[in-house]
Parts: sequence; structure tokens; C-alpha cells
Amino acid sequence: MVAYSRSHCMTLLTDYGLEDGFVAACHGVAMRLTPGISTVDVTHLVPPGDIRRASSVLAQTVPYFPPAVHVVVVDPGVGTTRRAVAVEAGESVFVAPDNGVLSWPVAALGGPGRVHELTNEELWIHPVSATFHGRDIFTPIGARLAAGLELDDVGPALSPDELVTIPEPVSRLSRQHAEGEVLSVDRFGNVQLSTTDDQLEALGIRRGDSLTVEGSGASATVPYLDTFASVPEGELVAYTDSAGRTAIAVNRGDAATRLDLPAGTRVRIEA
Amino acid sequence: MVAYSRSHCMTLLTDYGLEDGFVAACHGVAMRLTPGISTVDVTHLVPPGDIRRASSVLAQTVPYFPPAVHVVVVDPGVGTTRRAVAVEAGESVFVAPDNGVLSWPVAALGGPGRVHELTNEELWIHPVSATFHGRDIFTPIGARLAAGLELDDVGPALSPDELVTIPEPVSRLSRQHAEGEVLSVDRFGNVQLSTTDDQLEALGIRRGDSLTVEGSGASATVPYLDTFASVPEGELVAYTDSAGRTAIAVNRGDAATRLDLPAGTRVRIEA
Amino acid sequence: MVAYSRSHCMTLLTDYGLEDGFVAACHGVAMRLTPGISTVDVTHLVPPGDIRRASSVLAQTVPYFPPAVHVVVVDPGVGTTRRAVAVEAGESVFVAPDNGVLSWPVAALGGPGRVHELTNEELWIHPVSATFHGRDIFTPIGARLAAGLELDDVGPALSPDELVTIPEPVSRLSRQHAEGEVLSVDRFGNVQLSTTDDQLEALGIRRGDSLTVEGSGASATVPYLDTFASVPEGELVAYTDSAGRTAIAVNRGDAATRLDLPAGTRVRIEA
Repeated sequence: MVAYSRSHCMTLLTDYGLEDGFVAACHGVAMRLTPGISTVDVTHLVPPGDIRRASSVLAQTVPYFPPAVHVVVVDPGVGTTRRAVAVEAGESVFVAPDNGVLSWPVAALGGPGRVHELTNEELWIHPVSATFHGRDIFTPIGARLAAGLELDDVGPALSPDELVTIPEPVSRLSRQHAEGEVLSVDRFGNVQLSTTDDQLEALGIRRGDSLTVEGSGASATVPYLDTFASVPEGELVAYTDSAGRTAIAVNRGDAATRLDLPAGTRVRIEA
Repeated sequence: MVAYSRSHCMTLLTDYGLEDGFVAACHGVAMRLTPGISTVDVTHLVPPGDIRRASSVLAQTVPYFPPAVHVVVVDPGVGTTRRAVAVEAGESVFVAPDNGVLSWPVAALGGPGRVHELTNEELWIHPVSATFHGRDIFTPIGARLAAGLELDDVGPALSPDELVTIPEPVSRLSRQHAEGEVLSVDRFGNVQLSTTDDQLEALGIRRGDSLTVEGSGASATVPYLDTFASVPEGELVAYTDSAGRTAIAVNRGDAATRLDLPAGTRVRIEA
Repeated sequence: MVAYSRSHCMTLLTDYGLEDGFVAACHGVAMRLTPGISTVDVTHLVPPGDIRRASSVLAQTVPYFPPAVHVVVVDPGVGTTRRAVAVEAGESVFVAPDNGVLSWPVAALGGPGRVHELTNEELWIHPVSATFHGRDIFTPIGARLAAGLELDDVGPALSPDELVTIPEPVSRLSRQHAEGEVLSVDRFGNVQLSTTDDQLEALGIRRGDSLTVEGSGASATVPYLDTFASVPEGELVAYTDSAGRTAIAVNRGDAATRLDLPAGTRVRIEA
């Protein structure tokens, strides 16, 4: 039995929001098909259709799960000809539209293993709606895989090379500076950059030093310390965050707003 | 043993929001009374006291669950003389204030079977608060039913005719047009109308045709296609949604705002 | 076996919000370490770093749970020298930063029993991040306690007197009036005061009487009745809420906004 079906654990990440019954319908389908399944909500507040945001959040989450089935439904192309796929990675499997949303989480678990297209309509819920494949295709497949369905049974194998991918985050190192981008802004207004500890070190920036971050408009020089709480309230600080990335924060404040650094902004970092 | 107690599955739909501890207190009560219960949150973001919204969301969700106990607490009359009831429908049972909130979900499962009033105070949590019957009455009854409590034990039988109901959504068909209303607006701004595929067909509107939708202010002529993604980004489209209703959307945009069609708006559709 | 490990029940209360993957990473850690654990989300929408709000919400929730492990991560001092602790209370145990957040929920379960500092690094997830102890320290300890880990094993015992505490809410009774504060405002805009039924009774205020509440700016005289629904829509009312505290509400409206009574406001109540 494959690892991901031993834990009976499935996760669900969508852009469905929490006001409607969409998420609950998926939970219902999972419980109906696989009694005893444990379905964990990763988040349902991905901005509608924001594939990069979904990919970034999931990539930082999946390494902390036991072997599991991860169902992702951020699917602006639902009802068109985009493919639907199941992708093994490590001891887990992802089920999602083939639109690039799996790029970073699959990489976070070591890259793609077997890949299959979801074409076996016997496993779907009928009638299949044109707009709610989360309920009618992705969750039923995910729940059945969590119950031990063979990956072969969902449809024909594809080569991993055929998967749609999104580009890796911008992250370039020159002698004088690092170029990166804002990967995400969390609830606290902490700004996560694509750059890493190693890159800062290559630029000669060590804990206790300062670094300068330049966005499209503003620029700020901030101390590089252990955590946001290393500076007094209201002050800017850089640190390496829980995903190993460079973060810019204001202790008890909102750095993204203060420095005008929304997700996607290109930045340059120098000593 | 009745079907809904075999699955040990209970759902919870309220207007309690997610900032407070109200929902968690209900989960705690359920776990204390019925160890091993699986409680699924349908949504807790129903606008305060909005009975029609709660009824609409739940009606579209329950058909996808296994036999279950569905606890609904949208209860603007809590602490007054409004009745509390348990209503069987299909293989499931609903537990809720008798204020009409069950009308559409009970209909979605085939209409009411046995109906009992919740008067057996031995099953409640004491002292019963005047304002939190979700914690003190509805959840304890729901959790006990999920554990196999006989429906008879919650209180005396009522005739289904005695239940408070809310009117069916407006949906009338004449030779020239259909009259309906906006049933709900989802997170994406997609507008769900009360009209159905069959009604459009009766008006001679088929996939690939256009239809005209008139609200209180604006009017728009839009193509009737398979899904929102059938038109370029930013364009209006009509389609049949995952609940079998006519929907008006803007691909990657917000149709409810663009056309000023909030929930409850009366609309007229013609070819 | 201690009671809280029999139920396999863990709760999680944080200020992480619901947009990111932080909460899901904690769920994943819990499932990985303790298969079969039931993790209930109390709320993750505590305003960032708001220790009093977290303490207030949890104190009103935990009495309704079976014996459980309650993990609390509202932790503005994460990564600094603040201690991390496990505190027994009743048949449950709390795991949290030692910043006062446990004061009211521990009191709600009868006060602290054994207290241990979290210093046994073998139980943590490595590398331990500087900013995400919820994932790396608190949840792993909580999940292991839920699986039967001995409290002794998390680190050395402390005296309950060594715990950081936050002051009890202001609540003073004189012959003429009660002085209190706004403990919390819920989703509906209902204002929960620190005063209780007993105090109102000592002032000679009984159901059916009126009381006058004075905040920093406004003052209002309102009837003291059973529930918000005891008055017509749009009218003010006082009642004893589901936590036994005096509440001020507007039936189907928002009292906190109308009377300008946000959490923390000092109030005076008189007959």
C-alpha cells in the first residue's frame, strides 16, 4: 500500500472562500467516498485564480505533513480544455488542474514521480458540472487515492516533462547585490522575499549587519537580526523566516504597507 | 440503527463568525458528548440572522454528504418563544430553530419525514443560556442523534405541516420571459439566479445563444455558454452552475458588482 | 494515563489568520506525530499579538471541551527570551508562551496544577525557526502530550507563582455603581462587560428594570431583560450573556459601534 493511503489524510487548498458551501460540499464528498478520512483545510482564501500564491503557500506547508493526498483547486480554466492531473512526489500525491499550481509544492517534496492524467470518468461524480470540478473530479479522486486507489486507475501516465509549470521565483545573485521578488505577504504584513540566508551570506551580510532593500518605489536600510521581536515596536527589521527566506518586518506593525512591497514586487538587496 | 448515526458525521452551519469562541464551544460540546464524532463546518459566515442565505447555502451542500446530522443555528429569535425542531429528510436529520431556515435543505433531500420538537430538557446543557442555544441545545441534541439517540427522545412529534417555512425563490415562466431572483452571490461575484436550464430551454435559449437579464437598474445581453472560462477575461457570460441554476459571471471579474445584482434582486430573463 | 491524553483531542488558538499556511503546518505536524489526533481550531483571528483577547476567548471556550490539550500561540515575543510552558488545569493541559495568555483560561478550569517549562529540545522540530514556534515547539509538544507523553518530560517543573499573569478584568462594586470594562465585542457587535449578574443584583437591578451604562463618551439607559430578542429590532438592551457576563446589544444591530464601546473601554453601571 502506498504511503499516502496509509495515513487516510487529505488536504484541501482552494480559492473558494469561506462564505459559501463549496468547501463543505468537498468535505461531504470525501466523507461519503472514504469514511474515516481526515481532511485538513490548508486555506481557502487564496485570491481568486492566484496560482502563484497557491503554489507558494502549499510549498511551505506540505513538508510538515505525513504522507498525504493534497488536493488543490485554484482553477481559473475550469471547464476548458486544461488537463487535470495526479502527481506523486515523495510519499505524497497531489491532485490538481495542470496549470502550474503544483510546481513549487511538488519541488518542495523532491520533484515529480509518477504523473497521471485524470480521465477515468467512472471515478467522477455525475453529472459533472462545468464549474465545480473541485467537488465533481478533484475531491472524489483525492478521497479514493487516500483510500488506496491505485494511481494507474485515474487515467493514463504522462511524462513529468508534460506538466505545465510556473517559473521559479526571481532570485539572482551578482557580486554587488541580490535580485529577488516579494513571494508573499502574510497576515501580519511581514514581507517574504525570494532570497535566502545563503545569498545574504555571499553578499557578506551577517546577523547584526544592516542590509538595504529597494523596491519599485521606496528603499530602506534595516538591521538583519534573528526575529521581528529583536527590534523595538514600530521598527523595521530583516530576518530569515520559518521557510528559510529573507523577511522584512515591522515589529508589531505592517512592513508591506510601510514599504509598499506587495507580492510580486521586484526587489534588490545589497549590503 | 438509523443511517445518520452510522456515519458519526455532524455538520454545523451558523452565523457566529470565526473571530469568537462560539463555534469552538459547539465543537467541544460535540466531542464531549460523542467521542469520535466528525464535525464539519459548512460555513459560519452567514450574514447575521440571514435565514434565506443559510437555507440556500445548505440546500446546495447537503446532497453531497453521507447520511448525517445537520445542525443549523441562524437564530435571530433565540431566547423567545420560537420552537426548536429536529426534522428527518432522506437518510439525514436536521436540528435547528423552527424559523424557516430548513425549508430549502429539507426539500433538497426529498422533503420532511418525521418532525419532533426539542423539549426534552434532560438532553440540554444546563444552565441553558438565553442567547447561545447553539451550544446549549442544538449541538447537544445533534451530537446525541449522531451517536444513536432515538428521534422520539428529543420531544413530541409534530406534523410537518406545522413547520415554519420560507417561500420558494421567485421563479415564473411566461411565453416571453422568465421571472426570477438573485439567490446568492458567491465569493467570486458570480450571480446565481433562481432560474434553471429547463426554463431557459422553454424560452428557446440554448448554449451558444444570447440571453438578456434585466435587474432593477441595469440590463445586459450576454452569451449563454458552458462556463465562465468560455469567454475572454473581463467579459460577461451566462451558464448553468454547479447547482443547476442560471449564473451570470464575469470571467476573472465580479458580475454582481458590475450589474448591481445583490442577493434578493428580482430579475427578468428573455431570449 | 492522564485524562487529556485519553480523548486524543487538541485545540489550537492563534493569531495566524486564515490566508496563509501557518495553521495547516501545525495541523500537519500534529497528524504526523500523533496519528488519529483530533485538532479543533478555536480561532485564528485573534488580532495580532492581542493577549487579552486570546485569553478572554479561550476562557469562555475551554469549559465546554472534554479533557484536552489546548495549544495557544499568540506570541509577540517569539524568538526572544520569554519562556514557553505547559500548565495543567483541571483534567486538561495548556501549552503556550509564558506571556499571560493562559491567565484566564487556566482560572476558568480551576487554576494551575503542575507547571513545566518547555526546554527538552528533543521534542521539538529541528531546525527550530526563530519566528514560528507554533509549528516547531508548541504543536509538537501539544501533540505528544495528547498521545500520552508525561508532563515531566517536556522540561523542569516551575512553581505556578512563577507564571506571567495578566490582571483580572476591572470589576469593582460600590454602593452606587459597578465599575467594569468591555471584555470583548463579538461578531454581532454585542458588547460583553466584565460585570456579572450578581453585581447587578447587589445594585438592586433586576430583570425588567433599567440600567445606565456610561463609557468614555456616551451614556445610555437600557432595559435589563432576558436576551437581545426581548426588544424590537434596532433597540438597545442589556442581558446576561452565555458566559454569565453583562452584555449590551442592539437587537439585529451593532451596540459596540452605536455606543462607541470597543474592547478595553472602562464603563460604569448604575441603576
